[in-house]
Amino acid sequence: MDINDLEVVDLDEKDGALVIIDQTKLPGVTEYLHLHTQKEIWDAIKKLQVRGAPAIGVAAGFGIYLAACDICEGLHAKNMADKNEAYDEFASDFFNASDYLNSSRPTAVNLSWALKRMGKVVSDHKGEAPASILPHLKEESYAIKAEDQATNKAIGEHALSLLKPHMGLLTHCNAGLLATTKYGTATAAMYLGHERGYGFRIYCDETRPLLQGARLTAWELSRVGMDVTLLCDNMANSLMKSGKIDAVFTGCDRVAANGDSANKIGTSYVALAAKRHGIPFYICAPSSTIDFDMPDGDAIVIEQRDPDEVTEAWYKNRMAPENIKVYNPAFDVTPASDITAIITENGIAREPFTESLKELCCR
Amino acid sequence: MDINDLEVVDLDEKDGALVIIDQTKLPGVTEYLHLHTQKEIWDAIKKLQVRGAPAIGVAAGFGIYLAACDICEGLHAKNMADKNEAYDEFASDFFNASDYLNSSRPTAVNLSWALKRMGKVVSDHKGEAPASILPHLKEESYAIKAEDQATNKAIGEHALSLLKPHMGLLTHCNAGLLATTKYGTATAAMYLGHERGYGFRIYCDETRPLLQGARLTAWELSRVGMDVTLLCDNMANSLMKSGKIDAVFTGCDRVAANGDSANKIGTSYVALAAKRHGIPFYICAPSSTIDFDMPDGDAIVIEQRDPDEVTEAWYKNRMAPENIKVYNPAFDVTPASDITAIITENGIAREPFTESLKELCCR
Repeated sequence: MDINDLEVVDLDEKDGALVIIDQTKLPGVTEYLHLHTQKEIWDAIKKLQVRGAPAIGVAAGFGIYLAACDICEGLHAKNMADKNEAYDEFASDFFNASDYLNSSRPTAVNLSWALKRMGKVVSDHKGEAPASILPHLKEESYAIKAEDQATNKAIGEHALSLLKPHMGLLTHCNAGLLATTKYGTATAAMYLGHERGYGFRIYCDETRPLLQGARLTAWELSRVGMDVTLLCDNMANSLMKSGKIDAVFTGCDRVAANGDSANKIGTSYVALAAKRHGIPFYICAPSSTIDFDMPDGDAIVIEQRDPDEVTEAWYKNRMAPENIKVYNPAFDVTPASDITAIITENGIAREPFTESLKELCCR
Repeated sequence: MDINDLEVVDLDEKDGALVIIDQTKLPGVTEYLHLHTQKEIWDAIKKLQVRGAPAIGVAAGFGIYLAACDICEGLHAKNMADKNEAYDEFASDFFNASDYLNSSRPTAVNLSWALKRMGKVVSDHKGEAPASILPHLKEESYAIKAEDQATNKAIGEHALSLLKPHMGLLTHCNAGLLATTKYGTATAAMYLGHERGYGFRIYCDETRPLLQGARLTAWELSRVGMDVTLLCDNMANSLMKSGKIDAVFTGCDRVAANGDSANKIGTSYVALAAKRHGIPFYICAPSSTIDFDMPDGDAIVIEQRDPDEVTEAWYKNRMAPENIKVYNPAFDVTPASDITAIITENGIAREPFTESLKELCCR
């Protein structure tokens, strides 16, 4: 299998469906879902059947395009004579549908970003016949996907320039193909290097509590034939000490202006160990994740999640005493001083990040 | 409940049984097993129904005493006239039984240590009537248990002298009451402080892959009413950064002469984070675990365990792709330079450990 055998998010134009791989069933079952209604799409995002900020953005783009098609069909049946009236009804229904989709995961930045981008297309064509707006919406939805892939590929090329064949690479959580629509961010250099015969040895932290490393990253990298080894999170320091790791790559949810980076819980721990062992630690970040309004990581509010994820989820039997308190933050912040470089689609930023990030993003 | 409500390993003299709490059923079910035959005892050690080096040693002491009783009864039925002949047959059967028990977990140092100690009693009474040796064996088996409790209590008193009320304490794996017969080692100061109203806030790493922290430590500490919070291993760095932790305590399997300490995988990672955040990291070690023949931690061979522990054990469904490679070391070595102090029953050793450990153990 190669990377092109897996479409995380796609549009089936003939079937009028959003097609996603159901990530809740991985790695046991590879099942594609054809989602036709807005309710089905809303549920799929809510239930994490499609997940990862870029992938959700692309799903939302295709999803709202399908909604626009349905709305248009309804208007056509009404046979409205007044073009302006038709547009107004179309736009009103469109933005209602958009608000509905946006409510599926209110904190996912890419979801609202993609919907806003699609909404701008509708606004830019104010007063035009709804049917004539549809092609523009379709084009925009495909553009969102194409840009995601181009961004990730560019991140991968920059990252690969830092690597040599046969290196051992560690990653945490899933900032992979499955979180995007191709290449992933943290995994982009792994895929590109694999295509070019680099023969990397890849190590995946399992990433408790939700096990994205074991369930998703180990799956997507091993399926294309990479040499993948899984480890429990607490083994990463021992692994680094053993000399098997040459570089660490993770994604990120938000980068502050000074380079402090919020990512899946445990990332800061991996970065600390990498620093101890003199191993470069790289954050892979589309420039859209850099938040110049946030001076440093201290301002990033960390979501505390459900204790059941730690004590019960996945297990045959409950694994902790009843009523035990649980510390379950979703993310942590890696201080810029533990980050070797932040790799964006525009290039590689190094300390001092406050200057280098600005320079990369203002080119 | 208080600490005395829980007997991890005991002798039921009337019933002629070794009584253990079945640790494989915790935390869901609290079930005591009465083991009468050598086969039952062998199985219980093998299956980790009793675990933790000191607890296994105590179980072996009581177990081989029960074997001696059975052997004696058999000899009595034979009504042997010659005392020397009776002793020889007794001793031969005793050492066979001892070898058999010792084979249940060949790498457990305390198992062979306890059996040797019991064997010495038999050898010291060479030529005596077997029935007259039994009281000495019984006494020795109780002494092993009493010494374990005294050692742990002494460790706890030394550790407690380093603490103040209301501190937040983090531990990894289970070096608790359940691994010993009372107090535990890493938990000894927690129990003593709890009895004295210190109001500690205790944090337990869940300790993948076998979850001893979630299943055992969180259970045994919360059952006596301590304030216990569970976390996934990868959250410890974030927790320390949050300022909630004032000290870290772990047990150890072996301490090298220079202070390098082998303990459950992940321990070195916790120590690294503690050092970063300026939090003292304490190893709790009965002096019997200090190996003066081992100059440093590099010589300690680390056992690699079954991949299934990571990919399948506990789970409703397999959590990793089929045929994935797994890195699953049982232990790691914490460098002496990351250890604030090593707390033994004889006192507290600090850097330079090569001198301080020798001094403590040669008193």
